[in-house]
Amino acid sequence: MTDRGDVPAPEAPAAQTPSATLFAAQRLHDAREAAARAGFDALLVCPSADLRYLTGYDALPLERLTCLLLPVRGEPRLIVPALEEPAAAASPAGASGLEIVAWNETDDPYAIAAACLPGAARVGLDNHMWVEKADGFRRAMPDARQDLAGAVLSGLRLRKNAAEAQALRRAGAAIDEVHSRMGEFLRVGRTERQVGRDIADAIIAAGHARVDFVIVASGPNGASPHHEVSDRVIEAGDPVVVDIGGTTRDGYCSDSTRVYALGEPHTDFRAMYEVLLRAQRAQVEAVRPGITAEQLDAVGRDLIAAAGYGDRFVHRTGHGIGMETHEEPYIVAGSARPLEPGMAFSVEPGIYLPGRFGARIEDIVLCTENGGERLNLTDRELAVLPV
Amino acid sequence: MTDRGDVPAPEAPAAQTPSATLFAAQRLHDAREAAARAGFDALLVCPSADLRYLTGYDALPLERLTCLLLPVRGEPRLIVPALEEPAAAASPAGASGLEIVAWNETDDPYAIAAACLPGAARVGLDNHMWVEKADGFRRAMPDARQDLAGAVLSGLRLRKNAAEAQALRRAGAAIDEVHSRMGEFLRVGRTERQVGRDIADAIIAAGHARVDFVIVASGPNGASPHHEVSDRVIEAGDPVVVDIGGTTRDGYCSDSTRVYALGEPHTDFRAMYEVLLRAQRAQVEAVRPGITAEQLDAVGRDLIAAAGYGDRFVHRTGHGIGMETHEEPYIVAGSARPLEPGMAFSVEPGIYLPGRFGARIEDIVLCTENGGERLNLTDRELAVLPV
Repeated sequence: MTDRGDVPAPEAPAAQTPSATLFAAQRLHDAREAAARAGFDALLVCPSADLRYLTGYDALPLERLTCLLLPVRGEPRLIVPALEEPAAAASPAGASGLEIVAWNETDDPYAIAAACLPGAARVGLDNHMWVEKADGFRRAMPDARQDLAGAVLSGLRLRKNAAEAQALRRAGAAIDEVHSRMGEFLRVGRTERQVGRDIADAIIAAGHARVDFVIVASGPNGASPHHEVSDRVIEAGDPVVVDIGGTTRDGYCSDSTRVYALGEPHTDFRAMYEVLLRAQRAQVEAVRPGITAEQLDAVGRDLIAAAGYGDRFVHRTGHGIGMETHEEPYIVAGSARPLEPGMAFSVEPGIYLPGRFGARIEDIVLCTENGGERLNLTDRELAVLPV
Repeated sequence: MTDRGDVPAPEAPAAQTPSATLFAAQRLHDAREAAARAGFDALLVCPSADLRYLTGYDALPLERLTCLLLPVRGEPRLIVPALEEPAAAASPAGASGLEIVAWNETDDPYAIAAACLPGAARVGLDNHMWVEKADGFRRAMPDARQDLAGAVLSGLRLRKNAAEAQALRRAGAAIDEVHSRMGEFLRVGRTERQVGRDIADAIIAAGHARVDFVIVASGPNGASPHHEVSDRVIEAGDPVVVDIGGTTRDGYCSDSTRVYALGEPHTDFRAMYEVLLRAQRAQVEAVRPGITAEQLDAVGRDLIAAAGYGDRFVHRTGHGIGMETHEEPYIVAGSARPLEPGMAFSVEPGIYLPGRFGARIEDIVLCTENGGERLNLTDRELAVLPV
């Protein structure tokens, strides 16, 4: 191929058309102001969630340079390979009037970028830029100091505005629809992989443009937080951890975990699950502006530890979510970041007993002035399916 | 979710099991020798095709640090988040006996890595490492100069050994099988997207673990080299450019383009296609050790220019292929790199007439002592399908 295209999703229109309310010149304006406050002369943003957030252009990171140049003074420009110019022009970036500068196969795109940023003494790089791209900029702009722009950009992205909160509610409703259909997919005698395939189809059918991940962890596999799917056949009495998510057409992510049991599970599992359910509820109820990430983490961790499972909750409580499934703020011990209205993140404590079973309950929660708003609303009680 | 899982492919076993012939301690040994020759004290390799090539571990680049530490003296180690330890241990990396060092949620993984590399004065970073990871290493190892390891690693990867050549032949045969079924999918009245969905299923059915891209460019859409799929309905007389590829279970990529016509196309298209077919043939026949990338590019470009389409061949001739769809060597004007036995790359000239139609013919070609070996063998004559 001349370059990497997307895999067509069934029935889904191209993912390049975020609703106009979500993308706005306002974001470039805000990013520029934040960059100036942070002492940057320009931001350089390669294909990433940062680029999609700022411009609406959803491009894959590839060997040819695509980069948004956002000087704090002067006009922003989007540098793209000539081959990508039609796609960039057709994207919200093009529709917004952002100037697109195309480079040909034998041009030096870094030199073109450098010529657009005369006198820049300090540039901010998007955190996911490949080091080879940073190296190209370093050679073309040897006098420009490079620093990470991550704090500047995540500082914007982690406070969701009303339109973004609505987009995350839609994503939450879409993944809830998949969980509400789980009885159709989960049956004794099927493999995790077969169930996972059906779930992937259902994620698209529910209105996502893309499936991001499907975890179906049955029986002892539930004790591995990062299990994906396997050829294990689901048995009667198995608890099954189902952790799924996708990206909607406007670029926002969903992520929710529920636990199902194929018939009544072991009483030890019931006991453990009740502890987890209380912990997750307590954490969601603790969400409010001003509580820090580490305090919120501790709310669940302390409760789980008090029940004797302290060393079995082996991961952080959660991660921020928006145009990436994992972004700031992380809800983790050691982070003194206070929560603010507009932050959206997962609350997903888990307990894992290696060799036996495990469980995790996960909702996306939006911090509002009045506390936490759950964006996933399906029942969190253990769902016992008929066998 | 606690971290990103893969989307389950239908029927495909986990992609984490490359055949033992492809991964070997030999690769780590060779990389270490090449790193020493290049003046590095150690290589740092984050999740990427480089990591999979060296260790067999297929991990996604995520916010938590996963990194292979490969000192030129001393033992290699794979740093992984504790959550990923089971997956890393179950991968060929674990099976090979590579030491795995797990870090917990509140540890500083960069400090752990730095402690494993005492006295390193110059480290090489894999080219696709995120700048935020490089920054983490810079803080933890302030006295270690960082440079790109790309030339060292691609220097190994671009010469395929016999087992890799065989893996690419298998990938080529798998995508050929999909092209051989195109008559089932391409019909007047269907949309490109519908056809693309069927092709994606066929790519998996043919033995790939993953669909990488599906381009179905009908009628005037064929004039855009980077068109993917759209809701355009295919009409009688349309030429359709189909450029498709996937990754096999052992991690090697396929990529082949053929052009189909739904009934007899316009005579102008026929005339253009014949020029393209001659150019592609001439280029494949020109492949031999010693010819440079730019010479090979010129073989096709000159022929197309002589026929009057010089300004319509708007991209390079091709790209290397292996564990990535696009890797070294690039077959492009300005590259004086001589081809060597074991190099594998696409030969894919194209001619594009905006507003009318376009065409591209693509085979993966392996450079051998005796010339080029095509790894895609389906008919390259224009395939006229019944309407």
